[in-house]
Amino acid sequence: MSHKVRIALDAMGGDHGAAVVLAGADLSLTRHPDTSFILVGDEAVIGPLLANRPALRAASRVVHTDVAIKMDEKPSQALRHGRWRSSMWLAIDAVKKGEADVAVSAGNTGALMAMAKFHLRMMPGVSRPAIACLWPTLRGESIVLDVGASIGADVQHLVQLAIMGSAMASVVFDLERPTVGLLNVGVEEVKGLEEIRAASQVLRGTACGHMDFKGFVEGDDIGAGTVDVVVTEGFTGNIALKTAEGTAKQLASYLKSAMSRTLAAKIGYLFARQAFKTLKDKMDPRKVNGGVFLGLNGVVIKSHGGTDAEGFAAAVDLGYDMARYELLAKIGRTLGQSAAPAAAGEVAS
Amino acid sequence: MSHKVRIALDAMGGDHGAAVVLAGADLSLTRHPDTSFILVGDEAVIGPLLANRPALRAASRVVHTDVAIKMDEKPSQALRHGRWRSSMWLAIDAVKKGEADVAVSAGNTGALMAMAKFHLRMMPGVSRPAIACLWPTLRGESIVLDVGASIGADVQHLVQLAIMGSAMASVVFDLERPTVGLLNVGVEEVKGLEEIRAASQVLRGTACGHMDFKGFVEGDDIGAGTVDVVVTEGFTGNIALKTAEGTAKQLASYLKSAMSRTLAAKIGYLFARQAFKTLKDKMDPRKVNGGVFLGLNGVVIKSHGGTDAEGFAAAVDLGYDMARYELLAKIGRTLGQSAAPAAAGEVAS
Repeated sequence: MSHKVRIALDAMGGDHGAAVVLAGADLSLTRHPDTSFILVGDEAVIGPLLANRPALRAASRVVHTDVAIKMDEKPSQALRHGRWRSSMWLAIDAVKKGEADVAVSAGNTGALMAMAKFHLRMMPGVSRPAIACLWPTLRGESIVLDVGASIGADVQHLVQLAIMGSAMASVVFDLERPTVGLLNVGVEEVKGLEEIRAASQVLRGTACGHMDFKGFVEGDDIGAGTVDVVVTEGFTGNIALKTAEGTAKQLASYLKSAMSRTLAAKIGYLFARQAFKTLKDKMDPRKVNGGVFLGLNGVVIKSHGGTDAEGFAAAVDLGYDMARYELLAKIGRTLGQSAAPAAAGEVAS
Repeated sequence: MSHKVRIALDAMGGDHGAAVVLAGADLSLTRHPDTSFILVGDEAVIGPLLANRPALRAASRVVHTDVAIKMDEKPSQALRHGRWRSSMWLAIDAVKKGEADVAVSAGNTGALMAMAKFHLRMMPGVSRPAIACLWPTLRGESIVLDVGASIGADVQHLVQLAIMGSAMASVVFDLERPTVGLLNVGVEEVKGLEEIRAASQVLRGTACGHMDFKGFVEGDDIGAGTVDVVVTEGFTGNIALKTAEGTAKQLASYLKSAMSRTLAAKIGYLFARQAFKTLKDKMDPRKVNGGVFLGLNGVVIKSHGGTDAEGFAAAVDLGYDMARYELLAKIGRTLGQSAAPAAAGEVAS
């Protein structure tokens, strides 16, 4: 890809709407000047915000609509009233029409997935979509998928998740052969679900140039960074992700209260404040903001709805990487190569 | 229960064997002097260790066997070679025979569950066993079950988990009507799995004096302590538990490295060391050690294999509470009361 990376933004999405979206885009633009934006939303809102951001204005084209999807709208409702004309739909539509390489929205996850599926359709060879996220680990970052797009997974879907996740890891982490693990439990003799065992056999049997399959991993392997890509179906993945977020919040709260309880602790905090800042940065959920919708004919990134400009910029950066390093082409190639063994798995399962 | 609480210990279980088991029992005995122990294991090992622990020796009876289950033995193997004669089996057997109120082992989880199921059998009205654990939260502690005994759950089993978990919460937390939530994901319009929705309807429909059903909770509600009892099937529960453990380890490691990076941080650490100690205590996994096997005709507690005396004592304390406050009788009563609506659920599902 030699042209600019073209990113369509749902300017009205998220808890804070256009102010955060535009500030985030501006920030990302300083890091990737070879980006152009399509800003979809209410011109009356976007116009004044762009006035103070000349660099962003120069890199952007505004597509007006006054229909925005609410954060609490049901996906079916959103699809009914927002199709063809909402800012979310039109951002996805820009990808569909080839006017943008990627769409980013901080809006309602369910509505975004429903519209993306409806409009972009599944890639050939992929049965269901997935959401992949970056997960900070002791070794850096890993990719975990699916964190909530589809509930349950058969052998085929688990194998597809491994393929899509490893393609994404090769793009994001610049790795030739990312390591991949299947999330499982370790306490039972006959470990885990039938389909996970079967998927493991298929993945072991695949002579994979593009992934290094390491077998099963457990919940505590995610944070340890044992593998680059952790594969699981969306129910378990979503619960693992939110459980980890809850645990991080809980420990941050313990730390805060411990550090403010006594005078000595407060003095200690002052001395160590740079260290606490480093720690806070390390735990900053904004830095790994952005769920990548995988399996569709187009790249869509979901930003956390409640994030700020820094967080939204991280989601835009992620979209930039996905487009610049040609995620979809990589997934397509790998799916093609893996078609034979995946089909064998279908027979075996 | 007016007599002493009688606890059977698998003295050979765990990574460190009898030394940790006896030290833990001794510690728990100082907190609950109305305990008597049956110590099952190799007399030649136990005898000398008891010599230095007169209080424990006075409260204990040793049952000799030189067969011990290995930590890595497969459950079926363990059952084959260890039935009737291993320290693990004989501790469970003491419960079976009514000689002990509860058995505690730090041995191999799979083997312990296999033996407990085989020997104690399921309670009437319970289809499958579960493992419940205490989970530290921002509000104190919650109970999470199942964390790995059974994979998958139908409506009936989820309802039974809610009943058993709330009975355990009433015992451990001394609550009349513990709050109960079903673990689910929140991003889909049609939220979660069919059986979880159906179980929610059954639990809502049950006029429950013994639990306050709060509907669905998400992964981050566990650490927040939103409900007293979090119900999920064993696959997801095990992954949530291990993911949280992994996240806690990860953050502790970040904190440690941040506090040792600069001189100022080290000085800060010295000032705040009491606060860090409080924090460490709060995060101490040993204090909430012990998985309770639920659904069997007898109480069995699984301690972490790698724990120390303090951790093993926590598991023994937990066993003491379960016996003293008559967990099984409570579960039995509640199952009886709930039999009608639970059966209705079966028809509906």
